[in-house]
Amino acid sequence: MSTGTRTVIRGGLVVTAADEMHADVLIEGGRIAALAAHDSDTAAGWTAGTVIDATGKYVIPGGVDAHTHMQMPFGGTTAADTFETGTRAAAWGGTTTIVDFAIQSMGSSLRAGLDAWHAKADAQCAIDYGFHMIVADVNDKTLAEMDTLVEEGVTSFKMFMAYPGVFYSDDGQILRAMQRASGNGGLVMMHAENGIAIDVLVQQALAAGRTDPRYHGEVRHALLEAEATHRAIQLARVAGSPLYVVHVSAEQAVAELTAARDLGLPVFGETCPQYLFLSTDNLAEPDFEGAKYVCSTPLRPREHQAALWRGLRTDDLQVVSTDHCPFCFSGQKEMGRGDFSKIPNGMPGVENRMDLLHQAVVDGHITRRRWIDIACAAPARMFGLYPRKGTIAPGADADVVVYDPQAEQTVSASTHHMNVDYSAYEGRRLTGRVETVLSRGVPVIERQAYVGRAGHGQYTPRGICQYL
Amino acid sequence: MSTGTRTVIRGGLVVTAADEMHADVLIEGGRIAALAAHDSDTAAGWTAGTVIDATGKYVIPGGVDAHTHMQMPFGGTTAADTFETGTRAAAWGGTTTIVDFAIQSMGSSLRAGLDAWHAKADAQCAIDYGFHMIVADVNDKTLAEMDTLVEEGVTSFKMFMAYPGVFYSDDGQILRAMQRASGNGGLVMMHAENGIAIDVLVQQALAAGRTDPRYHGEVRHALLEAEATHRAIQLARVAGSPLYVVHVSAEQAVAELTAARDLGLPVFGETCPQYLFLSTDNLAEPDFEGAKYVCSTPLRPREHQAALWRGLRTDDLQVVSTDHCPFCFSGQKEMGRGDFSKIPNGMPGVENRMDLLHQAVVDGHITRRRWIDIACAAPARMFGLYPRKGTIAPGADADVVVYDPQAEQTVSASTHHMNVDYSAYEGRRLTGRVETVLSRGVPVIERQAYVGRAGHGQYTPRGICQYL
Amino acid sequence: MSTGTRTVIRGGLVVTAADEMHADVLIEGGRIAALAAHDSDTAAGWTAGTVIDATGKYVIPGGVDAHTHMQMPFGGTTAADTFETGTRAAAWGGTTTIVDFAIQSMGSSLRAGLDAWHAKADAQCAIDYGFHMIVADVNDKTLAEMDTLVEEGVTSFKMFMAYPGVFYSDDGQILRAMQRASGNGGLVMMHAENGIAIDVLVQQALAAGRTDPRYHGEVRHALLEAEATHRAIQLARVAGSPLYVVHVSAEQAVAELTAARDLGLPVFGETCPQYLFLSTDNLAEPDFEGAKYVCSTPLRPREHQAALWRGLRTDDLQVVSTDHCPFCFSGQKEMGRGDFSKIPNGMPGVENRMDLLHQAVVDGHITRRRWIDIACAAPARMFGLYPRKGTIAPGADADVVVYDPQAEQTVSASTHHMNVDYSAYEGRRLTGRVETVLSRGVPVIERQAYVGRAGHGQYTPRGICQYL
Amino acid sequence: MSTGTRTVIRGGLVVTAADEMHADVLIEGGRIAALAAHDSDTAAGWTAGTVIDATGKYVIPGGVDAHTHMQMPFGGTTAADTFETGTRAAAWGGTTTIVDFAIQSMGSSLRAGLDAWHAKADAQCAIDYGFHMIVADVNDKTLAEMDTLVEEGVTSFKMFMAYPGVFYSDDGQILRAMQRASGNGGLVMMHAENGIAIDVLVQQALAAGRTDPRYHGEVRHALLEAEATHRAIQLARVAGSPLYVVHVSAEQAVAELTAARDLGLPVFGETCPQYLFLSTDNLAEPDFEGAKYVCSTPLRPREHQAALWRGLRTDDLQVVSTDHCPFCFSGQKEMGRGDFSKIPNGMPGVENRMDLLHQAVVDGHITRRRWIDIACAAPARMFGLYPRKGTIAPGADADVVVYDPQAEQTVSASTHHMNVDYSAYEGRRLTGRVETVLSRGVPVIERQAYVGRAGHGQYTPRGICQYL
Repeated sequence: MSTGTRTVIRGGLVVTAADEMHADVLIEGGRIAALAAHDSDTAAGWTAGTVIDATGKYVIPGGVDAHTHMQMPFGGTTAADTFETGTRAAAWGGTTTIVDFAIQSMGSSLRAGLDAWHAKADAQCAIDYGFHMIVADVNDKTLAEMDTLVEEGVTSFKMFMAYPGVFYSDDGQILRAMQRASGNGGLVMMHAENGIAIDVLVQQALAAGRTDPRYHGEVRHALLEAEATHRAIQLARVAGSPLYVVHVSAEQAVAELTAARDLGLPVFGETCPQYLFLSTDNLAEPDFEGAKYVCSTPLRPREHQAALWRGLRTDDLQVVSTDHCPFCFSGQKEMGRGDFSKIPNGMPGVENRMDLLHQAVVDGHITRRRWIDIACAAPARMFGLYPRKGTIAPGADADVVVYDPQAEQTVSASTHHMNVDYSAYEGRRLTGRVETVLSRGVPVIERQAYVGRAGHGQYTPRGICQYL
Repeated sequence: MSTGTRTVIRGGLVVTAADEMHADVLIEGGRIAALAAHDSDTAAGWTAGTVIDATGKYVIPGGVDAHTHMQMPFGGTTAADTFETGTRAAAWGGTTTIVDFAIQSMGSSLRAGLDAWHAKADAQCAIDYGFHMIVADVNDKTLAEMDTLVEEGVTSFKMFMAYPGVFYSDDGQILRAMQRASGNGGLVMMHAENGIAIDVLVQQALAAGRTDPRYHGEVRHALLEAEATHRAIQLARVAGSPLYVVHVSAEQAVAELTAARDLGLPVFGETCPQYLFLSTDNLAEPDFEGAKYVCSTPLRPREHQAALWRGLRTDDLQVVSTDHCPFCFSGQKEMGRGDFSKIPNGMPGVENRMDLLHQAVVDGHITRRRWIDIACAAPARMFGLYPRKGTIAPGADADVVVYDPQAEQTVSASTHHMNVDYSAYEGRRLTGRVETVLSRGVPVIERQAYVGRAGHGQYTPRGICQYL
Repeated sequence: MSTGTRTVIRGGLVVTAADEMHADVLIEGGRIAALAAHDSDTAAGWTAGTVIDATGKYVIPGGVDAHTHMQMPFGGTTAADTFETGTRAAAWGGTTTIVDFAIQSMGSSLRAGLDAWHAKADAQCAIDYGFHMIVADVNDKTLAEMDTLVEEGVTSFKMFMAYPGVFYSDDGQILRAMQRASGNGGLVMMHAENGIAIDVLVQQALAAGRTDPRYHGEVRHALLEAEATHRAIQLARVAGSPLYVVHVSAEQAVAELTAARDLGLPVFGETCPQYLFLSTDNLAEPDFEGAKYVCSTPLRPREHQAALWRGLRTDDLQVVSTDHCPFCFSGQKEMGRGDFSKIPNGMPGVENRMDLLHQAVVDGHITRRRWIDIACAAPARMFGLYPRKGTIAPGADADVVVYDPQAEQTVSASTHHMNVDYSAYEGRRLTGRVETVLSRGVPVIERQAYVGRAGHGQYTPRGICQYL
Repeated sequence: MSTGTRTVIRGGLVVTAADEMHADVLIEGGRIAALAAHDSDTAAGWTAGTVIDATGKYVIPGGVDAHTHMQMPFGGTTAADTFETGTRAAAWGGTTTIVDFAIQSMGSSLRAGLDAWHAKADAQCAIDYGFHMIVADVNDKTLAEMDTLVEEGVTSFKMFMAYPGVFYSDDGQILRAMQRASGNGGLVMMHAENGIAIDVLVQQALAAGRTDPRYHGEVRHALLEAEATHRAIQLARVAGSPLYVVHVSAEQAVAELTAARDLGLPVFGETCPQYLFLSTDNLAEPDFEGAKYVCSTPLRPREHQAALWRGLRTDDLQVVSTDHCPFCFSGQKEMGRGDFSKIPNGMPGVENRMDLLHQAVVDGHITRRRWIDIACAAPARMFGLYPRKGTIAPGADADVVVYDPQAEQTVSASTHHMNVDYSAYEGRRLTGRVETVLSRGVPVIERQAYVGRAGHGQYTPRGICQYL
């Protein structure tokens, strides 16, 4: 291979989930070819067409965001980021792989849903992507399709205990899907909220004139998240299947995961930056601004954050994803004025995750290696992308970020690249910033300039969960 | 650097605590210089004086055994392995670093104890070694010495809640030492058994004529291990210090660690192969053969093993060490005929640990990466040796084992290299065997032949615990 | 009052939930007028038309069985005991009050259901009775009716998380009923099994040819009882209401109640003699005999019994009722040959409860006072009948049993008085037997002869739960 | 018996731990002869020399205070109440039985200690009394004496995990005493604080100039109470003995008891009014006033109170005693100016307990029956005095209090009858007051006048714990 197609990243501190190495990184043919100590003869001997100086910087794996909803239809509108705008914003934020959710329509097949999502994403993405499948309609045919999808690389299936009449599955349907997954290696991902009970509380709140966004947080009671989490765990035990609980926000739900994991059960949990950095204080912002923060599970009182951080440290939570599902305040979030239940559920964040979690390193919540673990390695392992994604090791895809840990930035809608008219973190000062991003060795962000293109990103079939 | 001083290990599967890589490993000057994908141009270009073919083999970090007692005086006799024989046996078993225990004598200083142990080990060891310090006599002077020792690289201090009149410290002494450790970065290691209560039960058993080795297991009640574990945790909370509990054997003690870790406390636990593979069935072997298995904490009924394996999987236990402290059956263990309390406490095992834990991989108790974690990486991190020891990464010491995962062996005193006249695992068939061992790049075992020498092993000062 | 209308019970040991008194009992006008020490002047001075000699016997409150289903329609047939036969059998067994379940039909009102049950019971009963209300159809009208019923003395409402399509309420309906109860003083009684999931397992079992009665026990998984118990507790917390869980059978369900009560929540639990004395061994009896033991929740493996006894001792379970719902083996249970799901669910037992629990005293599971507590006082308090029922104290109804603790008996369908062709305890030897039973001072059983009459028993409106 | 020696209490509401009865109470020969409904013929027929009108009042059992220290030597001084003054004050407060602590001196026998306490109390007491034995010196002789004492009616033995060098027993001594108790029916009462660790913290605090009374609360860390509680429980499990933990104050200690009781272990807990009504706020009162509140275990931050109330409601705590051990502020408490460790440990309270707990009824913490349970019936059962003491039932001693639930009073040293110069509850307004007190039928307090005499009170040998 000629040196022209080779890249060397010199002088940085390579940080993975497990190691910190003063090493140069050699890239050949889009993959990590080698790591060598800075001062080694072999590193000194490397020649390359492209040399990136990472002195004083971190060299980290590109982020893996395992929970995004690009251009997702919801509540009569559509999430504002397309695969094109959303993956570009992801790259700006140091994320080089997303796993988005294809959706089965009621009465239709998994295949049809998956095809539709392939059509949306095809040739649009700046970075690599895969799909989970949302299973809305469990029946014999759907269950059979699950086997096929696992073989094709769609190895995870999201189900909803919330949203009756939309995505909701009852406990029998969930049990059947879990049984199927226990046989085919699939992983059931659960939106764990007791939606049947919540809908009663929603109707009662609206009937009582409690229509402001903050009531969204009150009716979606923390105990009803914990309850559903417990129920999903027990159903998984009966089915003999693993379980991955998405967007855990309540302290009591973390406690359910902790108890299950203490028993040695294959139960996993994800949280999101919004639950770690925001709270019901935001939902209570005046002039309907609280609507910006409406998502489900909802933001919780600030006291819950400590349990989430602790869960991330003790590995009772393994993954931080974004649940990126942006709706503009103007025209979209506003649909819910006078009725919080009509506010489209979702928040932007795909661009902010890596930086916010680095701030958590600065603030002492987590270590540097744990940052890479929860943002890169663990999601890659969880969803069968490892070691191609999520680490820097010989043989891995050269999805690499040069990260400046000293740079300072201020988050703002005026400077972000997501296609949404507000930032959930407007004005927040952060230490640390992405400098350069490679996707399979190809620059996407170069010294804070976008040099990527729609269509570079490839669909990436996935293996099964590697924690089993 | 000339290629003559370089070593390349080609074709193996590199397994670390975090990654499995199809990579060649380049060693320069006793350190890992680089890893490169097997099929990369850069690996192809490597030349070296020594080339080791690891095709079909694992390339793993040398084991780190954080709990050994070479030539330790105990109960009127001395552990049968010297630093020379013991470290050689360790190397045979794929272990390239031990951390042994220097002992403070009552009325004497830590310094004097440490000097004595340096004298025993100096120029004797086949592999690298460090020291923990056993603190037997807590007083103002001892506490001040702890600070000095931490700075010198003796960063962990073992205390005993058992053995009144010998090593025992009372709760006030323990609290004071923990307070000191919370200030100087030291880690208190605890032998957690309520020795005061146990000694009552010992006397009652002997008075009742229950003198057989199996009563050793009965009087050292599992609840009295759990009690002491709980107490040590609470004392550490009051002191604001971390805690490392050695040789955890009882299910109820694991539960105490689990509960503490669920709270996010910096509490750690070690178990040993004897608790994972042996049981009170062994203690009950006839003709005084049970004496071979007398150690403290004692072997437990077989049912406890599941909790230990689960603890290792859930990371409630982090480290597997050997507590290697061999006494010959003939002449040593026999001192306790007619009085189990006179049997020297301790078992051989430094040579068997890596193989037994690989067998656990074969048996499905743990994954391949977890094997390396609990046997290499975690002990290195726990005791401040990482990343020099415990991993294979650019910059690390070239302590490397080529391990044949298919080879079969039968454990026996007739073939082992420990200086003791019995094996605790006599006749056990294992899959997997050490083939070649490098210590800082220098062969110690070469295709199952010892090529090392006493004195190659260097004293290795340690940093502080890296889990804090 | 003339002495002719007075009764004195002399020489017995009066046992209540709290006390054991060597006292004579004076009855006037159907109520307990006084207790006096055997050797007191006042007792000596009592004259009465009827004197009962209880020397060497216990004098205990009549039993309160808070869970019976007389002549209940189920699965196309009807429970074999009418109010006439069933209450007579209850009296034979020392029970002087039952609380039966009136049933709301789907689409109909609570009132209509209650009226129908009043019509069945009116003028038929040998002993006093009250009604709980089964709420099958939660809607605004039903909820309003709940308030009225509480005021009328029907203060408890049973709901089902099992039996989809029959009695099943979803979590929203349950939440609404609990909210109503939290306002009007009502107590929600819950059949806690995840019926939605269970029905999937039932269909799978039948499809796989597993049609024998023992599969009834397997598909109704203990974890699915525990799950529903946990869910009901969380819903009650959200509603701010108390909760009473009926027929708890699984160890894991007891654990959920224990955890809730440790938090101080107003959560209560009932178990039944069949769970304490029988097991899945009975369900597995050959020749379809297992069908005799088909009830829901199902019998559990024998190991669960220890947790139930412990729960009764620690007051995590408060009440033992029978869930008496007898179906003859011949013609009724047989409907399920070849399909266990067609076996009518229910077992006879109203006559056996007091004796079986006395046997538990003999066996050392519970104390004599606890026997009276769980069988008489606690159910009376729980369902607002205390102190009229459930104790022997001045002012209480003279529902009194003279119990011979030394007598021996053998349980058998050939000698019992329930209208069912088998006994679940056939051949079991018991120590202790009812000798005489008074209901409001009037003899119903006299020295083991029935002297009562249909229609003596009166409908007894109830107050609200006295544990709140 | 002539009516002249009979007393009738008419018209009151009789409240026991189990029942509330509108009943008249007939007393003959110092015992309860009978209870009869107010409107019964038999009650109407009663004639008596003394008739007490209790209309609108409660008729309750006299209080049983199971933890007092009259004229106890401590820290170079002596508790200010003699048996004469202390029992008189107890009677004023509605307590008719105390169980005080005889103390074994180091090197002396239990017998000698008991004799000394008998000498102090003999002919001095206004109310009945019994003794526990403080075991300070465990040895073969002491253990043998325990058997004798149990037979004589001293059936409970207090041991200390605190106060090294004074009352402290080590874990081996505790284990031996527990083993003995498990054989002879005795109950070990435990002062559960890790005194060895606390003494280190005391010395460190004093050395750092933290000498104010509030540091007494800080050095006696809640975790060190919880630790000792856990340890005592585990030792009791090993010994197979029951355990009664005195003066529980910390939330974490309650949690240990709760966990033990959930397992069905015979473990019991007592708390005291000072922990329910006072807090570290009092210890922090200026001008050394905090010294008034120095006792061990210490007062805790106010947040702990909720756990204590909950424990009393859930029966995880069974008894409220006073630990009455008064030292005058002037001359006694002042001994600790400049050194909190020299403040005599103890507080007055024997007169206030019944009223404070009635206030808890008024405030909604506990029910009326639970008041009588924790203050009368449970201590009587726990220490083998039931049913002579602790209830109102035929055959019981006529220790009866007529209590006015509507009266208001203000607690003050200027009006109390304890021999101490301050009140821990100075100025507190309470609803409810003792009106009349009978001891074995003899008036001690009559319409709020003292009519008793020293020497009326009799020594009362006790049976064994009735909860076993």
